[in-house]
Amino acid sequence: MEPQAPFTSSDDARTARPLRHLKSYELSAPLSLERGGELPEVTVAYETYGQLNAARDNAILICHALSGDSHVAAHDADDDPGWWDLVVGPGKAIDTDRYFVVCPNVLGGCRGTTGPNFPNPATGKPYGADFPLITVGDIVETQKQLVDHLGIDRLHAVIGGSLGGHMTLTWARRFPERVDNAVALATCARLNSQSLAFDVVGRNAILLDPNYRGGQYYQHDERPSVGLAIARMLGHITYLSREAMTDKFDPDRHSPRRLQTAFETHFSVGSYLAYQSDRFVERFDANSYLTLTMAMDLFDLGATTDAIAASLAPSTCRWLVLSFSSDWLFPPAESRAIVDALIALRRSVSYCEIQTKAGHDAFLLEDELDLYGEMIRAFLDVSPHDEIEHAAEPDSPSIFNHRVDYDSIVDLLEPDASVLDLGCGNGELLARLRARGHDPVQGIELSQRAVRSCLQRGLDVVRRDINDGLAPFADQQFDYVILSHTIQAMTNVQGLLRDMLRVGRRCIVSFPNIAFRKLREQLHHEGRAPRSSALTGPNWYETSSIRFLSLLDFEDYCRDQNIDIIDRVALDTEQNLRVDNDPNLNADVVVLVIAAH
Amino acid sequence: MEPQAPFTSSDDARTARPLRHLKSYELSAPLSLERGGELPEVTVAYETYGQLNAARDNAILICHALSGDSHVAAHDADDDPGWWDLVVGPGKAIDTDRYFVVCPNVLGGCRGTTGPNFPNPATGKPYGADFPLITVGDIVETQKQLVDHLGIDRLHAVIGGSLGGHMTLTWARRFPERVDNAVALATCARLNSQSLAFDVVGRNAILLDPNYRGGQYYQHDERPSVGLAIARMLGHITYLSREAMTDKFDPDRHSPRRLQTAFETHFSVGSYLAYQSDRFVERFDANSYLTLTMAMDLFDLGATTDAIAASLAPSTCRWLVLSFSSDWLFPPAESRAIVDALIALRRSVSYCEIQTKAGHDAFLLEDELDLYGEMIRAFLDVSPHDEIEHAAEPDSPSIFNHRVDYDSIVDLLEPDASVLDLGCGNGELLARLRARGHDPVQGIELSQRAVRSCLQRGLDVVRRDINDGLAPFADQQFDYVILSHTIQAMTNVQGLLRDMLRVGRRCIVSFPNIAFRKLREQLHHEGRAPRSSALTGPNWYETSSIRFLSLLDFEDYCRDQNIDIIDRVALDTEQNLRVDNDPNLNADVVVLVIAAH
Repeated sequence: MEPQAPFTSSDDARTARPLRHLKSYELSAPLSLERGGELPEVTVAYETYGQLNAARDNAILICHALSGDSHVAAHDADDDPGWWDLVVGPGKAIDTDRYFVVCPNVLGGCRGTTGPNFPNPATGKPYGADFPLITVGDIVETQKQLVDHLGIDRLHAVIGGSLGGHMTLTWARRFPERVDNAVALATCARLNSQSLAFDVVGRNAILLDPNYRGGQYYQHDERPSVGLAIARMLGHITYLSREAMTDKFDPDRHSPRRLQTAFETHFSVGSYLAYQSDRFVERFDANSYLTLTMAMDLFDLGATTDAIAASLAPSTCRWLVLSFSSDWLFPPAESRAIVDALIALRRSVSYCEIQTKAGHDAFLLEDELDLYGEMIRAFLDVSPHDEIEHAAEPDSPSIFNHRVDYDSIVDLLEPDASVLDLGCGNGELLARLRARGHDPVQGIELSQRAVRSCLQRGLDVVRRDINDGLAPFADQQFDYVILSHTIQAMTNVQGLLRDMLRVGRRCIVSFPNIAFRKLREQLHHEGRAPRSSALTGPNWYETSSIRFLSLLDFEDYCRDQNIDIIDRVALDTEQNLRVDNDPNLNADVVVLVIAAH
Repeated sequence: MEPQAPFTSSDDARTARPLRHLKSYELSAPLSLERGGELPEVTVAYETYGQLNAARDNAILICHALSGDSHVAAHDADDDPGWWDLVVGPGKAIDTDRYFVVCPNVLGGCRGTTGPNFPNPATGKPYGADFPLITVGDIVETQKQLVDHLGIDRLHAVIGGSLGGHMTLTWARRFPERVDNAVALATCARLNSQSLAFDVVGRNAILLDPNYRGGQYYQHDERPSVGLAIARMLGHITYLSREAMTDKFDPDRHSPRRLQTAFETHFSVGSYLAYQSDRFVERFDANSYLTLTMAMDLFDLGATTDAIAASLAPSTCRWLVLSFSSDWLFPPAESRAIVDALIALRRSVSYCEIQTKAGHDAFLLEDELDLYGEMIRAFLDVSPHDEIEHAAEPDSPSIFNHRVDYDSIVDLLEPDASVLDLGCGNGELLARLRARGHDPVQGIELSQRAVRSCLQRGLDVVRRDINDGLAPFADQQFDYVILSHTIQAMTNVQGLLRDMLRVGRRCIVSFPNIAFRKLREQLHHEGRAPRSSALTGPNWYETSSIRFLSLLDFEDYCRDQNIDIIDRVALDTEQNLRVDNDPNLNADVVVLVIAAH
């Protein structure tokens, strides 16, 4: 009796079978726990992929999530599938031909590392509910001791999603000297109260299952399978998006597959949850579920950007943070809070919210692999990128070839000046500036494909709508903030200009000039709205420009707002000339350097 | 031991105490059930408020939701609070000085109407799990027999939210001759698979609670309280929004109130859920929970607009559909699907998605009462409204006083022509047209306060972003579709114009003309972007206009797109003149009547 085709999620691939390639390491001393107490003996079970190189600098630690394990990928063609085969393997985004990948089972779990199903040395019986309260910090401590044991001084990267993301964040702040790069996917600085509430309900279902017997059920035939299954069903719903569930279950909503199960199978979605949770209870231990969800729920780097920044202040690594638009368990705003904190700390950080229908589990699925996988690949590859050729990005919001005003902008910048480029597109200007010695250079861009291009150029880039302002950036954080050919598409012009003048010692603004002679004549003589490739695109009903301004209008604005105009370049891009005479009449593009008075 | 301040939701107000004002009626014959079988004896318990008038035409039936009951409001100062005291009572939105309100307890519930806790006449013992599978249709049938018994031929209105909304929809299609007006709040044509999944998990928790005993637990001391509590906790989460939970529980997240409970109280949100579910199991019966959630999950008017329209085709009443922006259990898109179906059926329908942080329970709370309560009040009041004075709506998107072009538009319309007004604001033009005899007239508007004003004028209005097009409207559904002073703020101009020309035999488009002499001169002589109160507002950086076009541009467009210009009125609104000579130069506002060629 086969249920409907399963989701291609990691969960379906995992089994209760022993992990054939499992290695293990016994910690050399008792483990002191953050919340008090200790574990006298700790075994850390793990798997490795690829080879540690002679310099011992190619190791990547992968941290698995709540229901994952060390089996991140199949070791060979005959091996069981891993939960991240899509991403980890020879030639894949995390390339095991190049990197030495280590994935330990987490402390408190049930797949080989010490957990509640291990014997308590004090009694000889399984810990059960006597397993102490552990934290993400305790989990990371065991991972760090494993890394020591493996003779790895610095990790090229720590990578994890969800609860694995919590471990990644913890690595970076607890052991900054050991982490060069951190990739945190679909995670948060602490769970929101809704996500916490789902964990609470799941734990209550387990704790009040009569077969839970206060946690000492190992010697009984009956396990708290109902409670664990209820918790798992609930978790499963939160890992998927509403839209993904509709697509999956609505076509045969009233025609569930038949199933041998104690659970309701009235609806298609019900038989799926029954099947998945029946499989889950075969391979997972209820006490581990309690232990690990509590560790996750207690994880708390703070509720505000300031608090998160204080927590992450010790970190020194480069960061890549990825969130997924339909993830409602750890929503993108919670990743943005982490990114804002890292920006406030002036860390090297890139961020992308990836558009997807797949929900929290998106980082385990193939749908957006072309984006998140390639972003991880590019981020891990820290070799120089300046020579790489980049094709134009078709979904870039730009309607204009930037090169003409880029030349002027480059000429206006002092060498070494730090630069924030707003709406940086595929990073062409920033790559030129970095090659010229500017440092740091940071981009902000809305197109996720353009963000990927920036990462492929090795640039720091944050996906963000600049209409939301630049709040996380500090006053005078950059020598220059650049807004090139974007002001005409902004809804929040005044707020953005104010923020730019706060964040940059100077700002460079370029835009198409509506008072260019040819445009004046279109309106005056022909009676048609001005249009030019630079300003409006071909037609009034198609343009992405929502504002029209002349050089004179902008100068008026600067005077009214007490903004100094430091320098100005006027261009006739059609004739490729610099304009000196009456630029408001003769220039179609203008570039201004401004600063707060 | 008091938990933290409860939400002001209906649930907290209800108790296990008997309902003092409960009346009851025994159905005169066995009830045949939709899914087969019958209930030989059925008691319908209900409460009433206000007085049935001599004409017997002032009765309103209120349908309660899953965990509600007949006690919709307190009967007097000494009475227990009702679940909708905010809305129902003397002088309130549903005014019991004016209307005779009837609220029956639902079939299958546990508050006085026949349900699983009633004795099964065949055995003398409570039905328990032998209570038959019932549907929303069966519930409505008992309500209809009660209404017959009360001597009410036509209900002025049927009103319900959530599961009560399903009853409202069912009333309108099953007994169209009995319903004059229907108000459906926070509801859907069928549950999405995510919402269904939460019900499945809740039912599994009850069904597999060992104390459930196959449903025959009434003679035992132990009830399936754990399973019911788990189901209730889960339901409770879905009734709130993420944002509301954060606001409520994050400030004291790690400082839960102490509580006598079997459930986890580690976190603030946990102690709240424990407290609420402990109260719930005191007053609710697990078999009723199973029975009513299954009735809700089986409710299915179709997955597509066409299917929903087929289901609702028998209905003849006026409709008011209200959804709540942060309701993720029955999301606004699902109410829009109902509204689209009613539009396709050419029913009189008004709709508003109300912006709120309060989630599904918003219709029970005070936060947005000023909107949803007043909309219900206005909708129920079907007396003529044309004489009412309306103040300008401050959040109307209009930046322009419409009256000038309204005069021209009115003059252009044949008497009696039907009209759809896109971006109708507070309904001023539509009210003028209705007074002039146009029928039907329908508005579409994005501002919820303007929607309320339209309802207060007695107009049919749908809150909708016209950038999303007019898909639910049929080809040639209206004689005229009007787009007055809105085209310059549209992102999707071409799509909308195509749709307008499909839906209207003719269309009227008015807009500010950028080629007006004064504006040409601003650009040509002054070198400043054209600005006028009609076009741009005071400044280039503040305008809500995102497009600029001249009369000539629009005429070019019509020629290119094979659109006939039937008539044209050009205005100089500053001098309050009609312009005949060179309108592209001399008119600041133009009004065109167009049609597909």
